[in-house]
Amino acid sequence: MALIGLITDFGLQDEYVGLMKAVILGIDAAAAPVDLSHAVEPQNVVQAAFLLEAAYRYFPAGSIHLIVVDPGVGTERAVLYLEANRQRFIAPDNGVLSLLMDPPGAVSSLRRVDNPALWRPRVSPTFHGRDIMAPAVAHLSKGMDARKLGPELNPNEVKILDGLRARRSGDGGIQGRIVHIDRFGNLITNLDQALLQFSEAFWPDRPPAIHLGGQLIVGVCRTYGDVEAGRPLALVGSRGYLEIAVRCGNAQRYFGVRQGDAVEVRPAR
Amino acid sequence: MALIGLITDFGLQDEYVGLMKAVILGIDAAAAPVDLSHAVEPQNVVQAAFLLEAAYRYFPAGSIHLIVVDPGVGTERAVLYLEANRQRFIAPDNGVLSLLMDPPGAVSSLRRVDNPALWRPRVSPTFHGRDIMAPAVAHLSKGMDARKLGPELNPNEVKILDGLRARRSGDGGIQGRIVHIDRFGNLITNLDQALLQFSEAFWPDRPPAIHLGGQLIVGVCRTYGDVEAGRPLALVGSRGYLEIAVRCGNAQRYFGVRQGDAVEVRPAR
Amino acid sequence: MALIGLITDFGLQDEYVGLMKAVILGIDAAAAPVDLSHAVEPQNVVQAAFLLEAAYRYFPAGSIHLIVVDPGVGTERAVLYLEANRQRFIAPDNGVLSLLMDPPGAVSSLRRVDNPALWRPRVSPTFHGRDIMAPAVAHLSKGMDARKLGPELNPNEVKILDGLRARRSGDGGIQGRIVHIDRFGNLITNLDQALLQFSEAFWPDRPPAIHLGGQLIVGVCRTYGDVEAGRPLALVGSRGYLEIAVRCGNAQRYFGVRQGDAVEVRPAR
Repeated sequence: MALIGLITDFGLQDEYVGLMKAVILGIDAAAAPVDLSHAVEPQNVVQAAFLLEAAYRYFPAGSIHLIVVDPGVGTERAVLYLEANRQRFIAPDNGVLSLLMDPPGAVSSLRRVDNPALWRPRVSPTFHGRDIMAPAVAHLSKGMDARKLGPELNPNEVKILDGLRARRSGDGGIQGRIVHIDRFGNLITNLDQALLQFSEAFWPDRPPAIHLGGQLIVGVCRTYGDVEAGRPLALVGSRGYLEIAVRCGNAQRYFGVRQGDAVEVRPAR
Repeated sequence: MALIGLITDFGLQDEYVGLMKAVILGIDAAAAPVDLSHAVEPQNVVQAAFLLEAAYRYFPAGSIHLIVVDPGVGTERAVLYLEANRQRFIAPDNGVLSLLMDPPGAVSSLRRVDNPALWRPRVSPTFHGRDIMAPAVAHLSKGMDARKLGPELNPNEVKILDGLRARRSGDGGIQGRIVHIDRFGNLITNLDQALLQFSEAFWPDRPPAIHLGGQLIVGVCRTYGDVEAGRPLALVGSRGYLEIAVRCGNAQRYFGVRQGDAVEVRPAR
Repeated sequence: MALIGLITDFGLQDEYVGLMKAVILGIDAAAAPVDLSHAVEPQNVVQAAFLLEAAYRYFPAGSIHLIVVDPGVGTERAVLYLEANRQRFIAPDNGVLSLLMDPPGAVSSLRRVDNPALWRPRVSPTFHGRDIMAPAVAHLSKGMDARKLGPELNPNEVKILDGLRARRSGDGGIQGRIVHIDRFGNLITNLDQALLQFSEAFWPDRPPAIHLGGQLIVGVCRTYGDVEAGRPLALVGSRGYLEIAVRCGNAQRYFGVRQGDAVEVRPAR
């Protein structure tokens, strides 16, 4: 029996997520599906990749994650099985697992999921999540050896998205972007804590200046309560990444930004 | 222990769905509720009927489905128990089970759920889902004989909605309608695969022409990838019904149509 | 093993709710989380307090409720453990448990949750739901003695919100307000059944007049079917409180009111 984290762009208004759970529980009644998010923007593989990275560490070792953001469903794109960081992942080969394969040494096992004996009797060309991936997840949860899923792959045979991580710029700053905007309007970036700490931008005598949407925040707070209601702040959010928030307010509306917009950290002058 | 599929028009913002689950799990801690959709349009019995038909086959035999789309709650309308296709269903007597009773021979058992010994001590006249139906479901899940739910009914004693299925028109075409629009804007019709295959519209030398919203699609594709991004297509969707989609786009906006609008298939000229 | 009711203002689009479930199930795989609502308005403690009161009675004795509406996260506000009415509650000390501590005699146990041995190794200052409260809930579910959570508190040491309940006005009426508006646009008030029954407003020769949004409803119905489609009505809803609805319609739009608006019951003239 395993926890099964679910990330999709299916939304919850349709039956799609429920059908995957019914298929999983029909094969392994002891499986425990856990919805992480089904509100990934349709076909937004980058958003799903960061959501997965933020979430998987909170699952016990051996958990299985099923990620179905799959614009290429029904085409020749493969379905992947990945073991990394003591967790297991099943997803289309479209780059959504990129952050888990960086560095490549993190990969314990990588396979193509292509054993039709595990599929549902009739496979819809538009819903591999239900007919191919959910059964694979359930058989793993029930204890099946992962080698039965299909043949091994090399990491260089699968699609990797480049440029997902923030990076240092020449002048000692960091360049990144907004990868998710949550219900509260908090702007979650790809500027991770380690990068922040090692950047010159964190020199103690020059607090970092965070630039976004043509505006500026100086300094990084610890929690929302560190500023007055209605004021913007930057903090290291619960994902471990730099977040921009407005206390008791909505940073998305405050800054007028969108997912994908640039965020830059520079030493303040 | 049984899987319990849940379909309602309650939405997820209120406590209503959670209360039904709490009642079910309070009676049978081993029950496994699976949300199919709680976003049925308020009181849209037809939408729920098609959603149910699309979903129930993916549940293991013996599963129980609870459908609470119940504009007549608190009036004299009965609550029904139906066994069909090796699955069990509890729902108000308002036609939501019509597709499952067609043909009538599909019905293995049909009962009125009216045994007050199974109800919660106080029954709200506005929430029979929580106080009458959820306990019935839970007792079944726990192994109770369905005969304890209430007396047998004849199929002709319950409400059946006519005209749900698409039908052949005089000139060799098929007339149907949009019964659901999903998160992606895909238009799901009631034109089922069997009807499509047997229709003259599928004569190989004349690809079918699908008419909707004053526009036309010629031919039926296999999957989204068969057309260019932004282009419309028709395909047999994962429900087994004709769907109209726009690759990497939104067919609802593209065609400017709404649920209930007509869709017609005719041989192309 | 316990049912675990979940109420938050996290929404379902982000991973926050799923992470709390993963943490809970990682500690107690037999726990059964039940979503009540994650659509509490951001930081609306009053709405959450009424939602909790409406919901907890439907859970079996010994259930645990986790309420994370927590505008003070990361500040000095405490986390509370409450036992009342044979149920258990974990929530921030911000008044969200007020209705359960009224009268104070209802409290069987009240503690501060402050034992770091139970926390996750790294506690985010912006997500105590995941790092402090979820582990506490899971250890309780697994059978841990509540005394290990932290020291006892007196009810007068915690924040209580006043004025939550409706009250009699001088002239024999009742003054309350709208505390929740549900998916159907039904207006749920804080005018409870007992108050209604004992009020002079219920004198049999003078049916009660319900005033809201500058308009008037006379009399209290039993269920929606008691009026014609499109007509407004008042009834005692499934929460046990006075509700204003429009049959087959939307009372929020009909009356043009908002959550928090006043509702008054007076004897009709």
